[in-house]
Formats: sequence, C-alpha cells, structure tokens
Amino acid sequence: MNPGTATVEGQRASLSAPARLRNLLRSPELEFVMSAHDGISARIVAEAGFPAIWASGLSISTVMGARDNNEISWTQLVAAVEVMADMTSIPIIVDGDTGFGDFNNARRLARKLGQVGAAGVCIEDKVFPKANSFVGAHHQLANIDDFCAKLRACRDTSPDLVLIARVEAFICGAGLDAALERAEAYRQAGADAIFMHSRLTVPDEIVAFMARWDNALPVVIAPTTYAAAGAQLFRDAGVSVAIWANHTLRAAVAEMRRAARTIREEEGPARIEQDLTPLSELFELMDYDELLHAEERYYGHLR
Amino acid sequence: MNPGTATVEGQRASLSAPARLRNLLRSPELEFVMSAHDGISARIVAEAGFPAIWASGLSISTVMGARDNNEISWTQLVAAVEVMADMTSIPIIVDGDTGFGDFNNARRLARKLGQVGAAGVCIEDKVFPKANSFVGAHHQLANIDDFCAKLRACRDTSPDLVLIARVEAFICGAGLDAALERAEAYRQAGADAIFMHSRLTVPDEIVAFMARWDNALPVVIAPTTYAAAGAQLFRDAGVSVAIWANHTLRAAVAEMRRAARTIREEEGPARIEQDLTPLSELFELMDYDELLHAEERYYGHLR
Amino acid sequence: MNPGTATVEGQRASLSAPARLRNLLRSPELEFVMSAHDGISARIVAEAGFPAIWASGLSISTVMGARDNNEISWTQLVAAVEVMADMTSIPIIVDGDTGFGDFNNARRLARKLGQVGAAGVCIEDKVFPKANSFVGAHHQLANIDDFCAKLRACRDTSPDLVLIARVEAFICGAGLDAALERAEAYRQAGADAIFMHSRLTVPDEIVAFMARWDNALPVVIAPTTYAAAGAQLFRDAGVSVAIWANHTLRAAVAEMRRAARTIREEEGPARIEQDLTPLSELFELMDYDELLHAEERYYGHLR
Amino acid sequence: MNPGTATVEGQRASLSAPARLRNLLRSPELEFVMSAHDGISARIVAEAGFPAIWASGLSISTVMGARDNNEISWTQLVAAVEVMADMTSIPIIVDGDTGFGDFNNARRLARKLGQVGAAGVCIEDKVFPKANSFVGAHHQLANIDDFCAKLRACRDTSPDLVLIARVEAFICGAGLDAALERAEAYRQAGADAIFMHSRLTVPDEIVAFMARWDNALPVVIAPTTYAAAGAQLFRDAGVSVAIWANHTLRAAVAEMRRAARTIREEEGPARIEQDLTPLSELFELMDYDELLHAEERYYGHLR
Repeated sequence: MNPGTATVEGQRASLSAPARLRNLLRSPELEFVMSAHDGISARIVAEAGFPAIWASGLSISTVMGARDNNEISWTQLVAAVEVMADMTSIPIIVDGDTGFGDFNNARRLARKLGQVGAAGVCIEDKVFPKANSFVGAHHQLANIDDFCAKLRACRDTSPDLVLIARVEAFICGAGLDAALERAEAYRQAGADAIFMHSRLTVPDEIVAFMARWDNALPVVIAPTTYAAAGAQLFRDAGVSVAIWANHTLRAAVAEMRRAARTIREEEGPARIEQDLTPLSELFELMDYDELLHAEERYYGHLR
Repeated sequence: MNPGTATVEGQRASLSAPARLRNLLRSPELEFVMSAHDGISARIVAEAGFPAIWASGLSISTVMGARDNNEISWTQLVAAVEVMADMTSIPIIVDGDTGFGDFNNARRLARKLGQVGAAGVCIEDKVFPKANSFVGAHHQLANIDDFCAKLRACRDTSPDLVLIARVEAFICGAGLDAALERAEAYRQAGADAIFMHSRLTVPDEIVAFMARWDNALPVVIAPTTYAAAGAQLFRDAGVSVAIWANHTLRAAVAEMRRAARTIREEEGPARIEQDLTPLSELFELMDYDELLHAEERYYGHLR
Repeated sequence: MNPGTATVEGQRASLSAPARLRNLLRSPELEFVMSAHDGISARIVAEAGFPAIWASGLSISTVMGARDNNEISWTQLVAAVEVMADMTSIPIIVDGDTGFGDFNNARRLARKLGQVGAAGVCIEDKVFPKANSFVGAHHQLANIDDFCAKLRACRDTSPDLVLIARVEAFICGAGLDAALERAEAYRQAGADAIFMHSRLTVPDEIVAFMARWDNALPVVIAPTTYAAAGAQLFRDAGVSVAIWANHTLRAAVAEMRRAARTIREEEGPARIEQDLTPLSELFELMDYDELLHAEERYYGHLR
Repeated sequence: MNPGTATVEGQRASLSAPARLRNLLRSPELEFVMSAHDGISARIVAEAGFPAIWASGLSISTVMGARDNNEISWTQLVAAVEVMADMTSIPIIVDGDTGFGDFNNARRLARKLGQVGAAGVCIEDKVFPKANSFVGAHHQLANIDDFCAKLRACRDTSPDLVLIARVEAFICGAGLDAALERAEAYRQAGADAIFMHSRLTVPDEIVAFMARWDNALPVVIAPTTYAAAGAQLFRDAGVSVAIWANHTLRAAVAEMRRAARTIREEEGPARIEQDLTPLSELFELMDYDELLHAEERYYGHLR
C-alpha cells in the first residue's frame, strides 16, 4: 500500500471504521466523499485521499449489468461491498436503497453489511423496488411509520453501524415541510445523519432545508446535478458531507469508450498507450509485491 | 440497444455465440478482440464494434480486488462472465486460466461457462494456482498429458463451446520446439485454436512459431508487450485473432485516478465534468428506456 | 444413475423440461410432486419416482438458515435451484413467492430460473415481502392488475417456462368469489396453471373452487394441512397436480434430531448405525463412480 | 432459541468462538463434535448439546450436488459456513480440505472463514484437488515444506482462528513414522491441533500414533469407520476431540429416501405423518416467533 493508505492504516488501529465515519459526519468541516463500485475503484478513491467511500447503488448496478431499480439482489450488493471493504481501510458508506423490503429485510442487510466491513448504510424513504432518483417522474414515498420501523430495526440490530436516513421528499415533489417532517422523524427513530437529496440543477432545495434544519443531525448531500453551486456554498449552508455519487464510474465509462473506439479504429493502442495505466502501476496498485514477498517468506528457497 | 448492437442481434438469431466465434477464428482475416471485465465494459466493447470479447482474468480479478493468481474462485469467475454475457450478444472468450484444478475442475468450469452464455474458454498449460504471465520468473508448465486430459474432458463435456489451448512455453522459457510440440498435442486433444503467448517487447517468438506452425489450427495472440509490432505484421504472420487483453481496464483505471485526484484537489468536478459520461448517456447505454416502456406496457395507465 | 432416472433421461432426449412439465399439468391423471431443497434431496425425489420436483421456498429458506419471509435473496434462490437442476433431469417447479418485487423483478427471476434449468415458476399474489402462508393472520393480497402485470411480463420474457399463478385468496380470507375472479384474471394474463392454496385441515375450499372452476386451466394444490382428505378426493375433484410441499425437509429434520440426540447421549452411533445411509450408498447416489471412470478415461495409466 | 442454546449464548458473551474451541481442544476431557452441512442441521447439532460443529466437506458438497473432490469452489464453502455460523453460537470447525491451492489460497480461505464466524479451520496435507479419504486408493500427500508454508501463512493471517492440521499419512499408506514426522512438523509450523485420520475399521493406527505422540498437541479424530471401538478407547488413548463427520447427513438422506418412497407408493403421507417434524416445531426451531415479536415491536398496531 502506498504511504497515504498507510496513514489511514495507522488510524485504523485505534478507531473502527464506523467510529471514523461518525467523526467525519460530526466534524464541523465540510468533507467530500467519492463513489466507488468495485475493488479497484475503491482503492483509487482511497489513493486520492478521500476520507470515505460511497458504495453507489447506481454504479454497482451498472458494473453488474443492471439498472438502478433494485435489479441486483441485496446479497449481490453485500458481495460488492465486501470486495470494496477488502481493498481499503477508509470507511465505506453503503447506498442501501430502501433496505430491499421491509424492516426485517433492512436489518438483515445492515447486519451483513457490517459483517463484511461497511462503516455505514444509507436507507432511503421510497417504496421497493425503487427507481433511480434522476430517472422518471413517478417516485413514491414510503409511509413515514414504516420507514421509521426500518430505521429502528437497523439501529437495534446494528448499534455500531452508522445509519443514514435519506429523504426523497424533494425527489417526489413533496416539498420542504414534508422534508423537514421526515428528517425529524428519522432523527427520532435513531438515524446518525440525514441525506437530503435534490435533483434540481440549483442548490435551492438544499439551502432552504439547511436554513430550517438547524443541524439537528449532520446532513449529507449528493450534488450530482448542482455541483456548479460550489463547495463554499455547501460549507456556508452547514452541510457535513458532500458525496460525488457516480463520478468514478462516469470517468471510467467515458475513457473506456474512447479507448475502445480508438483501438478499434486504429487496429492497435499505439496512439493512446501513454494514456493507459501501465501494467507495472496496476500491479503496484494491487500489491503484487506483497505476494512475491510472501512467497519468499513461506517458501524460502523452495521457489 | 444501439444500431451496431442491433446488427449483431440480427446475426444472433441465425447462429449461436460459439458458432460465430468459430467463424471468427477460422476466417482468413485478422480480427481484433477487446477485453472486458464487467457488465458495462462488455457493453462498451460491443458498442465499439469489436466482434468478440475477452473476459480477462487479470481484469476481472482486479475489479474483484484480487491478484491474477487464482485468488478469485472459479464460481466468482463464472458469475462475472454471466454478467457480461447478459449485457451483450457478441461472443465472449473466457480466460479460464488453468481450469482451476484438474480435468474434472476444468470440465465443470467449461460446462458452467457455457450455461451462462460464454462462447468459448481458453485454458492455459500452467500449474494451479497460476501467476500472471507478466509477473515473476518462476512459471511452471503443466505436464503435457495432464493438460491434454483437461482439454479432452472439456471437449467431451462441452462439445459446442469453443476450446482454446493457451501455450505458455515461451513465458516459461521452454523455447520454440516445446511450444510447437505442445500446440500439436493440444490440437490432437481437441482444441479449436491455439493461444500462443509471449511477453517479449518484440513479436519474434510469435513470428517464429507461426513460420513453423503452418496454421494447423487458428492462432490467437495477446500482443500486450509487443503491440508496437503492428497489425500488418500479425496479419502477414497469419495470426487469426489478436486480443487487447487488459486495455479497457487500464483506460478505466487511468481516468478514474485522474478524476478522483482532480475532484479531490478542486473540491468538485467543475473542470472535468465535460470529460465524464453524462448520466443521460449512461442511462441510454444501460437501456433505461426499455424499463419505462415496459412499465407502460404492463401497467398501462396505472402509473 | 438408477434405472428409474435412466428412463426419465430417455424422455429428456426428446422433450425439454418445460414441455414435460406442461404434459404433466395437462394430463387427465392426478400427479404427485415432491418438494426438495438442495442437491441430494432433489436426487432422492427423482430416485423415488416422482415426475417432478417442487423447489420449496420454505424448505430452501430453512436450509439456508432463513425464515420463509423473503429473507433469502432472489439470487440465492436461483443458486439453490441451479444445484437442484444439475442433480436431476425431472422437471423442477420453483416456488417463486411473489416474484421478489414488481413485474421487472419477477421477469428477471423467471429468466434466470429458466437459464439454470428450472421447468416452471410459481408466482403468488401477495405483497413482497410475503409471509409463509401457514404463519400468522395478516397476509395481504396483491392488487389484481399489478399481479397480472407480473404474469404478463414473465410470459413475454420466458415464453417457454411454465408459469403457475398461485392464488392466496383463501389464505387471506377473501373467499371463493375472489379466488375465482383472480384465477380467471391470471388465466387471461397467460398463466399455464392455477395453484389454489388453502390452509384448512379439510379440503372444502379446494373442492368448492374446483366445482365452479370447471378446469379452465389445470389446478395445482399443496395439501399440507388437508392431506388426510386423500388422493381419491383430489382426483374426483379434478385436481391436476398435488404437491407434498415440505415433506422431505420435515423427514430430514426429524431424523437428524433423533440421530444427533442419540449419538450425543450414547457417545457414538453404534445403536443407530444401521439406520444411517452407508457411505457406499451415498457415494453411489452421488455418482462417484463416474469420476473414477473419467480418471481412467482421461489419465489412462497415469494414475 | 431453546434453553440449551441459551446457555451457550451466555458463554458467548464472555469468550469468542475461537477461544471456546481452543478450550475444548485443550481440556483433558474427550469431547464429541457433530457434523452439519447447512443452516438447519447446524441448529440441530447445537440443540442436541454438542459443544462444536464440524462443517463437513463431504456433507456440504453433497447438499450442493457435488462430490467431495473439490468440486465446489472455496467461496461456495465460505457461503455454506456463513449460513451455519448465522444459525448457531457454538464454535464451528471448518473442513478446509487442502486449503484450495497454495499458501496464498489457504490464507485467503482462512481469513474469510474467520470473517463469516468460523472458529477454526482444518487443512489437510494432500494435493489439490483432493479426493474423499474413503474413496479410491490413489491419494497423494503434499510436500511437507509446502504444507508447512500453508500453515504458517494461515497462522500469520488469522492469528485468532484455530488451525488444525490434518495428517493423511495413514490414508496414503505412508505409515506411522511419516504420520509422526508430519504431525511434529505441523506443530512447529503453528498448528493448534492435529487431526489424525484413518480409514481402517479398527482404531489401531490412531492408538499407535497416540502412544508415540505423547500429546504434544491435542489430537482430533473422525472415527467414521472405527466407531465401534468405542468412546472409552478414544478416551484412554488420550484423544481430545472425536468428530462424527457425516452422521447428520447420512441420517437425513436415509429418512428422506424412506419418506419419499413411502409417500410415492401410498399417494400420501398419512402413515408416516407422525414421523415428520410438524411445521409448528420447524417454525419454533427457526425462531419464527422472533419475527412476529419484531413486527409488534416495530409496527406497533400498524399490522
């Protein structure tokens, strides 16, 4: 592992991943978290210095050949998170969608996510199966009591795991009062933080919410559509964590398309070879040296 | 699906994926095949117009957080191939390493790969667990008879699946005569094609092999280290298929690193937003419209 | 394989598993189907001469350490069915619960079940996550139109797979008219058969339904609670298939408890050794000989 | 959970599963351990009062439709153990076969087994893929140094997990001196206990080994073929743990065959109904009540 990761390793010794995530959420600073979707992207996010990873449902679905409509099963999600957790020591926040059913499904998901090394899970207040919040106009909010039942069940089952309640009131067109009512209900049900989602191209809904929420709990946002608003605005509004929720995937897709097209057209990678990560760097990123050292250690002169 | 894929779909109706792969191998033309490692990369390779996909062991291992030393299990490999096969209709050649054990393990792998939609499997003549051919200097060739047993068992179990025998004689420093002897033995054991591997930065080993092999079976290469030799040289040498064995992954890794670093440093994606695939294009690539149409179809005016 | 299975193998050559299941459903005879939940129980059901297997959700959940409340994921169910399909050639009817979500989840499940070798899937008209029909008093029927959407989506996606619509009207206390209305709606939506469920200890609900249904489609029952009514009554009522829905599991559980308790108390299996299947028979049931023959075939005198 | 399990739960609070397994191995008493192969059999073994479970490779393979020749992958084994660990709090010793490859595969297996809740892993000194020790006459011992490398790698990677080295010298016909030499080498490589295997119908090999081994480490046996020798003989010989390695499976198979045959012949379960575990007991064994209580707790009067 590179030195940056090593530092995180040092911190790991003293604090659990959930504890570090709680510190991150509660710190007065605005922190940025980057999405990942598999083993190598998780390591890349850690390498870049981000303090935590967003295990994006959209991104994980995409690499699994599925749409972000609960097409992959909850056990497939857990398996994807396990790969990511094995590749990094920074805390992972899992996009748990609606919890994949009722309170019982949600608490089972939470327990398994904790077992594979996730630091936290985010559950959103829509109906299963959900649709991606950026697609379509017919999103359906869950009943508040049912959703609070989910939160309380996760809380009881996994007291250590960070629990983030995602409010889809703005996505569903329910407005600010509904957003505030739900955020408060979820706080009382045991959430550690509120993820307030908006798909406007301006941050107005978020700013309006923050003005009245008064930081009763730390607030998380994903400014996919309103990134142009800028970090300072989020900071001034009192946001705790901003998630770049799908950017590593979108970078990968763009470049794979360019590379595939070019290599196809030119019958070879000559012109773009220097844009590709060399195998040597890939092997370094994946700790191949550790294996060579282990062979020496365990086989001595046998090999 | 886009028109390019649609054309392939048309062909699919008439010929099975293995049949199309056999045609590809036997055609007098040099064909290029691109690696993929998950659902979205498979679709991107098809979109770029490649006639087939190489399900790369190195790349699949990397996204699963593992090294290319049989760290992932054979069932994890099958699951990864299933995702890729579900995302595209072009034939998939699976990097089956050594077959994950003996003839029995190999034939079980082959059968499952066929079931999930692979068109062919490539088995290499090293000892399990293998190391990546570009790493280290201590690769061990399998006993010829044991390896032929694997090929015959796969042939018998999966008569339809294309069976490619990968010769690691050059990787192991065994020389040209050994390469020829093994290629011929594997031909007699039922292989449909020979994958002759070399890790020199020049194509000399391949050219020498082709000169004496006389196209007894179609030959596949992966010119990762000797790509600079150029397509015409491979064509002149009589190569049937050249595989770009890890290039989509290396493109993705390079760009994810650049994007993660930039967004981290600049506290936002503003400067590189235009380099990322827009969500709308991602949704198009993943056929989200199909789901909207299906909702209309099955729900009518209910939603 | 034993001769009985061999006969089925003979039939397999000519007809697909779904075709054989359709014949079974449409035949004028009452047929009995037995539940299984893993590889060995599937083989045992075939060995006993049953013409088909019920892949029981209750039983599969139990061996997976879960309750019959959609605690296991749909991909775990598919994996369990794959094991069973690999172990037998008689048709497998999969207990698909509610389809694990909406029409899209249901059609994805149906497609994967077909891919791993299932002959048919049974979908029930309750709300996800469902509860076992024998547990509790608060079962909730699905909206008819939503459920018909599921059936039509499965029908379109998997035209070959046998599609059985399970009516839970009696379980939910909705009465005979509701049962008939739903059965007819599901017939129009494309179901191949109706599974009419009852948890009374007498067959009255089933008999009443059959009297008015007039065999518009073949009818399947699971007389777990009203088995004492007897085969002749089911035959006279015109039932097509009666499923013993959990009996292999209940036999296994009972005997494992007895054996574990006895061996614990007596510090050894001496007294019950003759009640246990000998290893030699287990090896025969699992075709170990095939592997020995294959070793001879592929290694010759090498081993 | 029943009172017996509750007692174990009490102990669980104070000691980890590996710690309890170490105590079991080191106690001067002969202890008996029973095999299990899935969720329900694990719970039954705990219910019967056994202090630990043997996660049998033969049994797990059988229920997964595979032969005990490393036909299932190591990740499938881990998944099976996870189910068992989730169903019980008594320590689970996992039959890890040869570690599924070299030292790297073995240590990865060990780490994952620990993560899902196993208390210990047993690794045997044969060559991958192994055959069941009761089948065939051509078992091949691993090189001692290679096997010690595996043990040391597991020890380093999973210091907490109990590590049992299984000596197959008698199975391979290598004799007593070889058995002793290997046991001592494995002790020095870090094993917590030695599993000395024999397939004679008399305990002579074990007794001869114990006489010279002098309890340098606790010894585990699986008296499948020489059970008739009796507990007192094992006790007198100084054996630490005797494993009934496949008895729950063999009980289940025997009774499922009897039940399936009878129900088939008699067109119903009437005559054997009283031999089957009632659904009510099955629901009790699987804690269905917990779910009903949880519904009350989280939904209040909503349902």
